[in-house]
Amino acid sequence: MTLFPAPGFATLRARLAALPAPDATAAEAARARQDSLTKPPGALGRLEDLAAFMAAWQGDARPRLDRAQALVFAGNHGICAQGVNPFPQEVTAQMVANFRAGGAAINQLCRVAGADLQVVALDLDRPTRDFTQGPAMTEGETLAAMAAGAAAVDAGADVLILGEMGIGNSTIAAALARALFGGRAEDWAGPGTGADAGGVALKARVIEAGVARHAAALADPLAVLAALGGREQAAICGAVLAARAARVPVILDGFICTAAAAVLHPLGPDLLAHCIAGHTGAEPGHRRLLDAIGLRGLLDLGLRLGEGTGAALALMVLRGALACHDGMATFAEAGVADG
Amino acid sequence: MTLFPAPGFATLRARLAALPAPDATAAEAARARQDSLTKPPGALGRLEDLAAFMAAWQGDARPRLDRAQALVFAGNHGICAQGVNPFPQEVTAQMVANFRAGGAAINQLCRVAGADLQVVALDLDRPTRDFTQGPAMTEGETLAAMAAGAAAVDAGADVLILGEMGIGNSTIAAALARALFGGRAEDWAGPGTGADAGGVALKARVIEAGVARHAAALADPLAVLAALGGREQAAICGAVLAARAARVPVILDGFICTAAAAVLHPLGPDLLAHCIAGHTGAEPGHRRLLDAIGLRGLLDLGLRLGEGTGAALALMVLRGALACHDGMATFAEAGVADG
Repeated sequence: MTLFPAPGFATLRARLAALPAPDATAAEAARARQDSLTKPPGALGRLEDLAAFMAAWQGDARPRLDRAQALVFAGNHGICAQGVNPFPQEVTAQMVANFRAGGAAINQLCRVAGADLQVVALDLDRPTRDFTQGPAMTEGETLAAMAAGAAAVDAGADVLILGEMGIGNSTIAAALARALFGGRAEDWAGPGTGADAGGVALKARVIEAGVARHAAALADPLAVLAALGGREQAAICGAVLAARAARVPVILDGFICTAAAAVLHPLGPDLLAHCIAGHTGAEPGHRRLLDAIGLRGLLDLGLRLGEGTGAALALMVLRGALACHDGMATFAEAGVADG
Repeated sequence: MTLFPAPGFATLRARLAALPAPDATAAEAARARQDSLTKPPGALGRLEDLAAFMAAWQGDARPRLDRAQALVFAGNHGICAQGVNPFPQEVTAQMVANFRAGGAAINQLCRVAGADLQVVALDLDRPTRDFTQGPAMTEGETLAAMAAGAAAVDAGADVLILGEMGIGNSTIAAALARALFGGRAEDWAGPGTGADAGGVALKARVIEAGVARHAAALADPLAVLAALGGREQAAICGAVLAARAARVPVILDGFICTAAAAVLHPLGPDLLAHCIAGHTGAEPGHRRLLDAIGLRGLLDLGLRLGEGTGAALALMVLRGALACHDGMATFAEAGVADG
């Protein structure tokens, strides 16, 4: 299914209705297999849910996990002019270089988890506009970033891990969450890379100013993405949609990654059904955001780094889940009495 | 340090005071290294704690994870005569055969997590005595099982994972927890492998009967272990102590494994300092028990299988933590601006 290039948001929206649904038969067969394995029914908890989830999206009661792709999208943000982040914006490009040299946390975790990592830097020398002064991106810029995200997805992957990097983007994420799900900016703004109470209050004021300025956009999630988002957020949306078109299950990372994907939630009740939340991060708004989109983090390790780190750790658990699903003996095979 | 054979509980108790302490200098050096890595300080949450924990026990600021040992202890219990478990006791031996054939959940998880699994079956054809009728084990039987657990530990391992299997042993675990930490039997008894409400109530009644019968033992944790425990519980205690003597960090599994190790907690405030809780399981008493001994589960995946499965999954996270600790670039190495 071709989602991109879409000439405008209206065309893209029209294409979403045709995205594939989960295979309920495969999921049911996976559940039946779980009940036949040498353990009390349900004793593997969320590992059993993961096996059924993977079966549903791969359309196979014995899902594979041979090819795991990890994508980290990086962008820069005009909102940094408002002083929302203590780090200079050059750090985004420096961290992209660190990813490419193999020195970041996500490199180590992808190696351990067996994921193939690619980093996509999106016009780092051309930050989005300061959303307190005007829309962060035009419709065309937003769609171009979505298409870049979609193009990076390996349609043959067995699972896709998403992450992000961008100085200032915890403010972007909180602004998106505020615009999409309401509440006050204070409900969504948090310390990010390390803002103090004064810094968090500044973020909240900046977000309210942006939401007030773009009040006319609030009814349309894609217009919200353009007005308040950034290129890496748009790329994540594009990647989530491309993965759905190819029936590739997705593991979301922390607050910023989740806020980007959450743009799709109001566009269709099941648009994120092929996504799991890798973890619940330490950024205070993350739990609230997961609740808003009906997901529950697999891990809860106090992470607040982004990059896809929580999703990569969740991939390890997913590997464990599928290894049990595929490798365990049934009661009959093992000659174990079944209750 | 030789802990076993100990001719009696008094001798063993006397030897505990000489067990090694953590290396605070190595832990501090590990924390300093974490703060130099390309991430905001503390952004890796519990992964940073794990790196410092491993450093403290290995006495090395750059801890290794080359040799991971997993031990599963299996035992049978006279308390099954009271009807506390719907499965026949033969299932313990059948599951041991399943472990040895590679068909159980723990086999798959150890393969994914990179742990070397050994199963130690403890006199399965000679169940402990029904604790409502008398002490489950003599002092000598208890010490022999502890020594068997200790002897199975690889003193050269970089980490030790502990698990158990034994039809009826969720009742044993709840009885130990009740005797060691008070409360009512209902606070500790849960569904185990799948008891219904009536089954759980029966377990609680059986536990109160055992605690009443062995009231004189309650002041001495080792006497509690003998009166109400089982061989795999004693073996876990022995393995935890042998690991401590060799400075091998330990990952505990679920409620049953934790209850066994918890016997050591009242014997010395820091006797479990080299242990982490791999997960919080679905068995209701587990969270309460972890609170009682001051541990917090690393994972929370709704598992209620035992065998060491939650600990093996936690090993994957530990691998991620040490890979970050060892492999990440510092701000200086990567040329990234440090705030």
